[in-house]
Amino acid sequence: MKKRKVAILGATGLVGQRFIQLLENHPYFQISTLAASQNSAGKTYKEAVTWRLNTAMPDSISDMLIEECRPTFHCDYVFSALPSSVAGPIEDMFVNAGYTVFSNAACHRMDANVPLVVPEVNWQHLSLTRYQTTPGVIITNPNCSTVGLVMALKPVADLFGLEEVNVVTMQALSGAGYPGVSSLDIVDNVIPHINGEEQKLTSEPLKILGNYNEHEGAIDFAPFKVYAQCNRVPVVDGHLLSVSVKTKEKVSITALIDAINNFQPLKGFNLPSAPEKPLIYLPQSDAPQPRLHRNLGGGMTVSMGQLVQYSDRSLRFLALVHNTIRGAAGCAILNAEMYEAMNG
Amino acid sequence: MKKRKVAILGATGLVGQRFIQLLENHPYFQISTLAASQNSAGKTYKEAVTWRLNTAMPDSISDMLIEECRPTFHCDYVFSALPSSVAGPIEDMFVNAGYTVFSNAACHRMDANVPLVVPEVNWQHLSLTRYQTTPGVIITNPNCSTVGLVMALKPVADLFGLEEVNVVTMQALSGAGYPGVSSLDIVDNVIPHINGEEQKLTSEPLKILGNYNEHEGAIDFAPFKVYAQCNRVPVVDGHLLSVSVKTKEKVSITALIDAINNFQPLKGFNLPSAPEKPLIYLPQSDAPQPRLHRNLGGGMTVSMGQLVQYSDRSLRFLALVHNTIRGAAGCAILNAEMYEAMNG
Amino acid sequence: MKKRKVAILGATGLVGQRFIQLLENHPYFQISTLAASQNSAGKTYKEAVTWRLNTAMPDSISDMLIEECRPTFHCDYVFSALPSSVAGPIEDMFVNAGYTVFSNAACHRMDANVPLVVPEVNWQHLSLTRYQTTPGVIITNPNCSTVGLVMALKPVADLFGLEEVNVVTMQALSGAGYPGVSSLDIVDNVIPHINGEEQKLTSEPLKILGNYNEHEGAIDFAPFKVYAQCNRVPVVDGHLLSVSVKTKEKVSITALIDAINNFQPLKGFNLPSAPEKPLIYLPQSDAPQPRLHRNLGGGMTVSMGQLVQYSDRSLRFLALVHNTIRGAAGCAILNAEMYEAMNG
Amino acid sequence: MKKRKVAILGATGLVGQRFIQLLENHPYFQISTLAASQNSAGKTYKEAVTWRLNTAMPDSISDMLIEECRPTFHCDYVFSALPSSVAGPIEDMFVNAGYTVFSNAACHRMDANVPLVVPEVNWQHLSLTRYQTTPGVIITNPNCSTVGLVMALKPVADLFGLEEVNVVTMQALSGAGYPGVSSLDIVDNVIPHINGEEQKLTSEPLKILGNYNEHEGAIDFAPFKVYAQCNRVPVVDGHLLSVSVKTKEKVSITALIDAINNFQPLKGFNLPSAPEKPLIYLPQSDAPQPRLHRNLGGGMTVSMGQLVQYSDRSLRFLALVHNTIRGAAGCAILNAEMYEAMNG
Repeated sequence: MKKRKVAILGATGLVGQRFIQLLENHPYFQISTLAASQNSAGKTYKEAVTWRLNTAMPDSISDMLIEECRPTFHCDYVFSALPSSVAGPIEDMFVNAGYTVFSNAACHRMDANVPLVVPEVNWQHLSLTRYQTTPGVIITNPNCSTVGLVMALKPVADLFGLEEVNVVTMQALSGAGYPGVSSLDIVDNVIPHINGEEQKLTSEPLKILGNYNEHEGAIDFAPFKVYAQCNRVPVVDGHLLSVSVKTKEKVSITALIDAINNFQPLKGFNLPSAPEKPLIYLPQSDAPQPRLHRNLGGGMTVSMGQLVQYSDRSLRFLALVHNTIRGAAGCAILNAEMYEAMNG
Repeated sequence: MKKRKVAILGATGLVGQRFIQLLENHPYFQISTLAASQNSAGKTYKEAVTWRLNTAMPDSISDMLIEECRPTFHCDYVFSALPSSVAGPIEDMFVNAGYTVFSNAACHRMDANVPLVVPEVNWQHLSLTRYQTTPGVIITNPNCSTVGLVMALKPVADLFGLEEVNVVTMQALSGAGYPGVSSLDIVDNVIPHINGEEQKLTSEPLKILGNYNEHEGAIDFAPFKVYAQCNRVPVVDGHLLSVSVKTKEKVSITALIDAINNFQPLKGFNLPSAPEKPLIYLPQSDAPQPRLHRNLGGGMTVSMGQLVQYSDRSLRFLALVHNTIRGAAGCAILNAEMYEAMNG
Repeated sequence: MKKRKVAILGATGLVGQRFIQLLENHPYFQISTLAASQNSAGKTYKEAVTWRLNTAMPDSISDMLIEECRPTFHCDYVFSALPSSVAGPIEDMFVNAGYTVFSNAACHRMDANVPLVVPEVNWQHLSLTRYQTTPGVIITNPNCSTVGLVMALKPVADLFGLEEVNVVTMQALSGAGYPGVSSLDIVDNVIPHINGEEQKLTSEPLKILGNYNEHEGAIDFAPFKVYAQCNRVPVVDGHLLSVSVKTKEKVSITALIDAINNFQPLKGFNLPSAPEKPLIYLPQSDAPQPRLHRNLGGGMTVSMGQLVQYSDRSLRFLALVHNTIRGAAGCAILNAEMYEAMNG
Repeated sequence: MKKRKVAILGATGLVGQRFIQLLENHPYFQISTLAASQNSAGKTYKEAVTWRLNTAMPDSISDMLIEECRPTFHCDYVFSALPSSVAGPIEDMFVNAGYTVFSNAACHRMDANVPLVVPEVNWQHLSLTRYQTTPGVIITNPNCSTVGLVMALKPVADLFGLEEVNVVTMQALSGAGYPGVSSLDIVDNVIPHINGEEQKLTSEPLKILGNYNEHEGAIDFAPFKVYAQCNRVPVVDGHLLSVSVKTKEKVSITALIDAINNFQPLKGFNLPSAPEKPLIYLPQSDAPQPRLHRNLGGGMTVSMGQLVQYSDRSLRFLALVHNTIRGAAGCAILNAEMYEAMNG
């Protein structure tokens, strides 16, 4: 199979770097274009980037010239790693020019006919693109914390139904981009606030865990309630979520652990970025931990731990998601692979 | 006034060091005896201790000889900073020998006729000592996280009544003592578990916020429910609590902020360790923060922030407590000052 | 005595905040003006600043209006905490308008007739101002690392003479200002480079340890050689220096320790900001440590440790300096106190 | 080729874990025995270990039973990851029973007929085993910091000759084992001391960079001088060395950079653990950095940076070594591969 050509918008940022790292040696996709802001355009990638990953920059990338974010690329798919503050109009420009865009930015996530997808949770929502009337197509992935939350909630929802979710996050520094959080704000400290994050965590899950209404071309939002309080901690990568849930039905912890460990909704699709285990339940009393478990499944597995029944219809657990892999670039790539499997 | 002589059990540990720091220049109390384990007994304090505070060791202390923990001291009060694993029998020995013991250890906190006290919250419980039948007396202060939680909950309880409390903690390293947490477990990491902590956080508040039943010489436990999930974060001092509360009555955020800022239940007593403001509400969207706010009021003020109404009868807030000052040594000293004021 | 009115230029930065903290309750000086960039001018201090110190902002300061940095103030002394990138022309403007400026910025440090002073090391250089021909006067303090280095070198120079100095620094985050170093660059990391720092460390000590040539109104630079390699480490405050020295004369470690502990060159002057011990030798094998020792002497004492004789005429030691107190604001204030004592 | 069976002594420690990680899928070696202290013997590996690496424990290892460290194994090679405090007699027992031992412990490194080897620097020293008169054989690798130092010094020595080396280290936490350094000692701090480390750094390089005297069966130590000052910094893995060198001959920086980048002394041997580039010179002004560069070459490449000529015959540079891979387990495995190539 000839590889699909893909472009990356916002290629110099932290999420852009993850796209490059994850797409090196990808079996279906090949990076043909790197694009970024006007400051970077015209430079080689290695000149423009402050490379912050601990694997070497791929040789095939370092001398590529960075282009401006204009819809003049020869490519099959566009991955947008742009900051949400500028992503909206640029992504619109590409969609209006007929491109297929997979966006990590927040701008279009809640738009009525835009799928907001984590494939293992709601790949069926990808069909919503049929109702998009633009020349091109746009598909979004959620906020990095939301990805972890909805993946962990999916088996709970399936088994017991969701009534109310209360989540307290301990989020990694890479979630704020680079330079992002000042070191003086976080060494020997926790910052109990992340701008705009609580709003995303309380709204996005209702769409993702909603039902695709095929007849109306719409998502019927799930009716449960989410409360969120977000904290930044001195961790490089990996968002840790402390979640308590009130359910509709009676809780069974053993049934839930079974469901977590057998969670394989994409089994038949053979997608290259889909981890063998999208969820894993770690039985140790002090798991999951960001430094030890964020890279499980190549950063695509969400680790869960400490399932405790609080009452007949309530429980709590911890979930850990690698925020720039599963929570961003990796999720967008998996969306593209799934979209390809459905439409290719 | 002649100063009371006080002894410190467990004087070389982190909490013991805080006792020494806080009692330097205390107007009522003077350290007359330092006691520790057999390993340390017979050495000078400066030989035996690994001093971990960033103020210099008081000159008057450094050459004092450390004694064994036996009830042979000439002193008025005994402060116990012993680890809970060994405190029980030693404290019993002192109480049976007629000493008045203020203990930071967990062993006797939940005993029926032992006061478990944070003066601003339940100083009235100190009267429970009348029902102790031993030659001496024992008074305890709560677990470090519990201290922060009950102080923050007190005005909520008074205004709206408590139905259910859900707390997620982000706790400092000093809470585990020295050497305590391995650096390899916490750099670039969070440990989502603290041994025994959730159990203390879910039980102690019910006693502290209960009513002293004078006729029966007992505490009627408060009937609300606490759920807790505890995390260790890379912070030296200061436990941060993310708390959501279901109340009995309708919530008013402005009334609660007023109550917090006017919270001064010990006003008339003029206790030297009582801070001007036991509680303070910080209006910034990213407060309180451990490194910036843990030392307010000399480490005796609990900082609150981010009060948000979740529904008619629910709200959330953040609270920060300096775990080795207000949450341990400072609370025990304040208990002693209050006991002195009531009985002196 | 009526207090001198002082203005602070760059009052919202980290060093500006230290000036405010250190001048609260100062016996000679009273802050009458806060000045900062145009962005901040016209706002109250509390609106404009991101307060990063762990003591509360003084009440007397929080509502003061910030002024622009123009020479229209009614004050006796001007403290400049401006970043070196903008300080030069602004300081010139004040000096030309007749003000007496004490500057922490790098711009004028190496100017021929500008004193570069750490009072304990070279207060005699303050007389160099007699040769300044401007209406006002300017006096500078060195780079934060240099302050620690020259204080530690002073007794070595006096006893044995300096031939060659090789210093490797481990510097705190606050040295880079706020926001300064990105958290992603420093958590679980060391950055082995600080822009411009090595150049300052290799040149400034030669001026400071030089002789004031009274007849020519000039400083005869000291003839030794300094090599420096600078590193940023994940520490909030406190620069640690690992220093090896080749001396002119035979080394005696015991004589040097005596000289360090008896180093009191300002004894007769009774300056309020002068610490009782400008230098202290810590005998522990693992001292000095930034977190434990940076605040000794209120942050004005330089701690030394691990003196080891390498050969007949070489030795090594460690020195620790609180970079924003002794290494910046505190040194400038001490310069002003000394200048006052000489000219007041 | 049938794989060699290897045993690991001290399999549960941090270095033992690295042996297991690096030997998973090794083409020549297969782990047949895991041994540890009596506390662990009889347990399965997963029961006994506190696994601290961020890759999953190999399935083939987790249920292996841990044996005592007695010479009753059926294996070809023994890797010793024992702590130096207990390694000596145990290793002797194995050597006397005829085993071939590759030891990471300090006990036998300086013994006259024991090779102390980093293959790229002095593989020729392996021949020294001919002069061992025990039934078995022992080969050691240096201290983790020494490995980085001698690899970086090798091209300097070859080009210009060494007169004097002054090294200041900033060492990672994993170098102290687990639990090792207390978190309270290192968060917001540097510890300027590592027990015994300076002694190793000043003696081991003279043996490694010495000449193998084939006729006498001895190593003629190199005659230069090393001075060392060692610091612990809050970094998980990766020792950073700031090194200044006085040379015998005139320095040329460009010649040295060429030599570093072309350093491939093991080229013809095709050893599986030998990295393509044992040394790499990073031209960025702020390199090498522990978090970004410790994993280059799978943790087997030593990164160098910031070569600066100090004078005609002196220079300085920075070097970074992954302390538990290249500086410990990886070096021992490479020694075994080289020994196999010479004797297999």
